[in-house]
Formats: sequence, C-alpha cells, structure tokens
Amino acid sequence: MTHTFAIVGYGTQGVYHWKNLQQIDGAEVKGIYDIDPRANDDAEADGLHVYESFQEILDDSAVDFVFICTPNDSHHDYAVEAMKAGKDVLCEKPAMMTSAEMEDVDEVSRETGKLFMVHQNRRWDPDYQVIKKICDEELIGPATYLEQRIHGSRGIPGDWRQLPEQGGGMILDWGVHTVDRLLMMVDSPVVDVYGVRSFVAGHDVDDGFQAYFRFANGFRALVDVSTNAYITLPKFYLQSATGCAIIEDWEMNGRIIRHTGAEEDDATPIQAGVGLTKTMAPRIMDYAKMASTTPPVEELPLPEVDSDVMDFYRNALAAAEGREEPAITNASVIRCLKILEAVIRSDETREVVHPEQA
Amino acid sequence: MTHTFAIVGYGTQGVYHWKNLQQIDGAEVKGIYDIDPRANDDAEADGLHVYESFQEILDDSAVDFVFICTPNDSHHDYAVEAMKAGKDVLCEKPAMMTSAEMEDVDEVSRETGKLFMVHQNRRWDPDYQVIKKICDEELIGPATYLEQRIHGSRGIPGDWRQLPEQGGGMILDWGVHTVDRLLMMVDSPVVDVYGVRSFVAGHDVDDGFQAYFRFANGFRALVDVSTNAYITLPKFYLQSATGCAIIEDWEMNGRIIRHTGAEEDDATPIQAGVGLTKTMAPRIMDYAKMASTTPPVEELPLPEVDSDVMDFYRNALAAAEGREEPAITNASVIRCLKILEAVIRSDETREVVHPEQA
Repeated sequence: MTHTFAIVGYGTQGVYHWKNLQQIDGAEVKGIYDIDPRANDDAEADGLHVYESFQEILDDSAVDFVFICTPNDSHHDYAVEAMKAGKDVLCEKPAMMTSAEMEDVDEVSRETGKLFMVHQNRRWDPDYQVIKKICDEELIGPATYLEQRIHGSRGIPGDWRQLPEQGGGMILDWGVHTVDRLLMMVDSPVVDVYGVRSFVAGHDVDDGFQAYFRFANGFRALVDVSTNAYITLPKFYLQSATGCAIIEDWEMNGRIIRHTGAEEDDATPIQAGVGLTKTMAPRIMDYAKMASTTPPVEELPLPEVDSDVMDFYRNALAAAEGREEPAITNASVIRCLKILEAVIRSDETREVVHPEQA
Repeated sequence: MTHTFAIVGYGTQGVYHWKNLQQIDGAEVKGIYDIDPRANDDAEADGLHVYESFQEILDDSAVDFVFICTPNDSHHDYAVEAMKAGKDVLCEKPAMMTSAEMEDVDEVSRETGKLFMVHQNRRWDPDYQVIKKICDEELIGPATYLEQRIHGSRGIPGDWRQLPEQGGGMILDWGVHTVDRLLMMVDSPVVDVYGVRSFVAGHDVDDGFQAYFRFANGFRALVDVSTNAYITLPKFYLQSATGCAIIEDWEMNGRIIRHTGAEEDDATPIQAGVGLTKTMAPRIMDYAKMASTTPPVEELPLPEVDSDVMDFYRNALAAAEGREEPAITNASVIRCLKILEAVIRSDETREVVHPEQA
C-alpha cells in the first residue's frame, strides 16, 4: 500500500521530511504548498508538484497524508481541515500554540478517525535514549535528579520564531522537546513547576527558559534552554544516591561514575580554595580528563542504544493503516503543552504552579 | 599591641586557626577549651594551655579574644557570654542556628562595644574572587545569570553535622558560604527564592540543596550544593547577553568566551542528534578541550586576583582596636541567614518565598 503525501510549508523542515520520506517504503511525496515563491521554485527543482492552494491539496483524492511544516500559528486550522477532508496528518512541533488547540485537534482526530501525529523527533535522539536507558535499567541505582540542557549562543533565528503571534520563542521550540522527553522518562504526576523565562536579547518572545520540576514520586529535574550560552554545559546530567551519569555534547562524550559499594576510609580534609573541606574532597583527581577516579568508585562507558528516527515515518504509515498504535500519542503532546503552560504561568506570577497536584 | 586568644573547640577548625594565628603579627594563642579529652591531649602536645571550663577563659584577664570553633548550636551562648565578659569574639560559620540568634548576638556586640565577626573565609576563595571580578568589571558585559555549585560525593561527615539539633546539614554548612558570596556579588534585593532540599542519604538533615534566586535588578542565580555528585559540575558559571565565564574546579581551570561584536553569517543548520538545529549550532568545535572557538567569539584566560585569607585575622585585630571596619559585617551575616531561612521555607511550603519584596 502506497501513501501519497503533500507537504504544507517547504522550508528547512519541509525539505527535510521530503528527503526522509524518499527512504520510506510505501511513502511518496506528490507535491507541496507554500506561500513563498522561492519555496515553490525549490520544490519544482526537486521534481515536486506545486499546489496553488491548500484547498487544492484537500481536493486531490490521490493525496492521503498531509505533513504540516508551517509556522506554529497555522497548525491547528490546517490539521482540522485536512482531517475533515479525510487526510491523515503529520505535523511539525510544536503541535499547537496551546493545549486547548491540541485538545481540539485530538477531538477532530477521534471524530474523523484520521491520524494526527506530531513529529516529536527528539525522542529518538541518542543522548536522550541513552539517559533514559540508564534511568530505566537503574544503571546507577534509582535516579533522583536530572538536568537537561540545550545550550546555544546564536540567539533566536531571525524569522517568525521571534514573533509571539506565530508561536516564536524557546518554550515552543526546544521546550516542547526537552519537557516532552522529561515526561517520557518519569512515570509520575508533575506536582510542582517553577519556571523562569529569559528575555536577554530583548525580543517579545522568550530566548530561553529554566524550569524546575518536582514529581509525586520525589524525582526532581531542571530543564535549561539558553540561546546566549557561549560556553555550553552538559546536555544531560543524572544523579542517584550512589552514582552519576553525564552526556556532555551532541557527539555523545560522556560517562557513568558509580560507587562500587566497597568500604572506604573516611575522607581526608583537603585544601580547597582558602579553606579545608572533607565533605567536598574530590574523587576525580584528573579534572582535565575527568577520567581517573579514586576507589571505591568506578567509571563505565555510556550504554549502547539502537535508535532510528526513520521509525517515526514507518510508524505513521502503520498507524494510518491501523497496524500499529501511534508512536507519539496526542495525550502526551497535550500533557506536555499543559506543563509548558505551567512554566509560563509560574514565570508570569513568580509563584510555583502545581499542575498535576494529587 | 598583642592580642591573646583562647580557642573554644579544638577540632579541625580550631587547630586550623591556631596554625594560622601563629603567622599573624600581634596575635598569640594562649590556650583552648574542649569537652573532648583527645582534643585536650592534642592541645597540650601543641604547647597550649588547656582550660578546665569556659568560665575559666572568661575569668582570664590575659585573654582578650575568643575564637568559637564548636558545633553550631553552642555559638550563640558562648558568643554572648564572652562579649559580656569583655572579650572580642571570632566565630566559625555558620555564625548561628537562626537569623534571630544572630540578631541577638549583634545587639550584644553593640551594647558591649565588643567585636563579633564570623569566619566567612570563603569570601577569599580565588574562584569566587575571580568570578566577582568578572562581574564587577563587566568583562563579559553586564552579567545576567550565575550558577554556583559545590559538588562532592562523600555524603555528610558522620559527626554532629548529621544532627539537626546541632545545626547539621548542608544549608548551614556550604549554604552559608555560597549564598553569602552570591549576596556579596549582587547589589540588589532578593525578591524571589525557590528552594529544594535533598534528603537522598536518608538523614534528618539536608544532604544538599538547590535554590533559585531572582533579584530586583533582574539578575538570576542558581546555587547547587550536593554531597552525592559523583561527577562534579563547574563551580561557577556566569552568563551575559554576549559572553560566558566558567570556573571548573578547585584548581581554577576555566575561561571566558565572549562575542567580539564582529559581523557574523547566519548560522548554518547542523545535524544534531536525529534532527537539524540552527539555533543550537555550536561555536566551540573541540569539545574535549573546550578551547578552539569559531569566530566571532574569542577566548580569554581568567583574570588574576590577589587574595589572602590571612587578611581575615589582620582585619579582626584592627577592628578590635578600632583601626578598621570589620571585613565581615554582622548585617551581612543576618541577611544571609534570612535568605537561607527563605530557602528552607520554600522547600517546606513548596512555594516561592519573597524575602525582600519591594
């Protein structure tokens, strides 16, 4: 069975999906719709049909899948119209501007029986997969605390991503990945959210944010997204009572350090700064390499994971045919948007928000 | 003029101050008082007089300075009695169990005209001095955000530091340094405090804490103290709109990265994880060294500072003689304890506390 796609919005992400879909058995991209003449020229050069209007896609019975890759404020209406016209829909993130929009789209999906699925591609990122594996398999014992960072220093891209009315800002950009992944990792209600948005660059949208989460099961997490981090801090940092795991960067430099359970002598106070400390005497003596360790701790490499983001497209086709459940549920996307709204509300009110208080 | 000291509590810190005071012109340690026979043996071996009681120190007219190095719950009464007996007083941190105790001691200091000064020695730490200099001199432009961390992995020392009734726990240990230094760096009221204590090791006192601070001038800060950080994160991390500074460790590895202000091309999207990112495309290409940078950013070494913790003792003598103002004011210690109490209250109530709301 072959599924025929039309892509709405042929910018960076539209082109990206066109390329990927060429590698998927049973998927074919027929054409695109974009309001930008340059995007239309690109599509023609790529051998794609250029639709004159979105309605023309809806009217094309050869098309059964629509992939929405436009700015955020247009996702809702495109999605609803496409499903009502009988198309299955894939959609770039953030799915919607608000959780209310997303709930509406989910309802239309149920009513029409058509698929709506968001491209939460960063659930397939190796760093996230590795840290989730360390958590799930308790490789450092039961994890207690996670830091997740996305650090850049190029500000916000100078397009619609700077405009609040089109869903710009970092909460709706990297927030929908980082918080989504956090929620996938921790199977417990979010009882406390403390959020702080930054407006360092002076735009009308946030250029980063930090949010602290407490879960009902006691797990704690910090999410930190910054576009003025000229020095980047580690992407993932996980603590337990008896170990730590770190992933430094996109290149997957990282390691696990864990207590071996062996007996240890009481620490000797060390000269640290201008004073003595016993409590904070380091175990890792070679800071430059962050490698050699003093007993009784041991270093392990990061575990291997087998992750293929192309499974997103394969699952989408299977879900449209009813052969598989959607890999990304709308319920999870609604929940993530609600938690992000709690981050915003916390920043606006300068109070803790309790979104899923028991 | 020679000042004669008696040290109360001859443990690690008492011995430390005895050694340091030997290097100070005009200071002489006559003896010690301790309830532990082993400490008395140590003192005799060190050639010091061993007082039979604290009262005996108060009665010794040769002693004009008392240095309190006992567990935290005894500081208040020793300090008050010593000042009322006409002695100047130095005191280990945390000065007191509560800000109320500290206000009481400050009042006695005013009434008696005797010096009371806390050994906030970590104001002289080179890492703090360097990061303060980067802030004060705006070496990366006006700073916007600071992270300050003290990370160890040895738990809490197994003595009175595990007992709440003696002032154990990390808020009263490293909290009184880290928050004190933060308050010294930022000349603005603390309007929001969000605090989370950790009890990972299962003691009755906190084995670490994290606290997020917002100041009236917009500055933001995270303080993170952990005793189960098997991998340590950088001690100081400072952001501005146009640069960053980092101090990795006690050995003062670190650097400044700042934007040169030169024109730059729009960033090219890079493959990062399973997706593309333009916003988070890295500038620092050699992660292992965190050194080579792509224009238009430049790397600078950390600035030099000239810091000598022995100035604490010299200032104490000068302040007792009225020649100098005390380097560490009681007002600053009271304020710090109040902010730490806000951290505790925030953790207990799971709400934001506004301790110095305008």
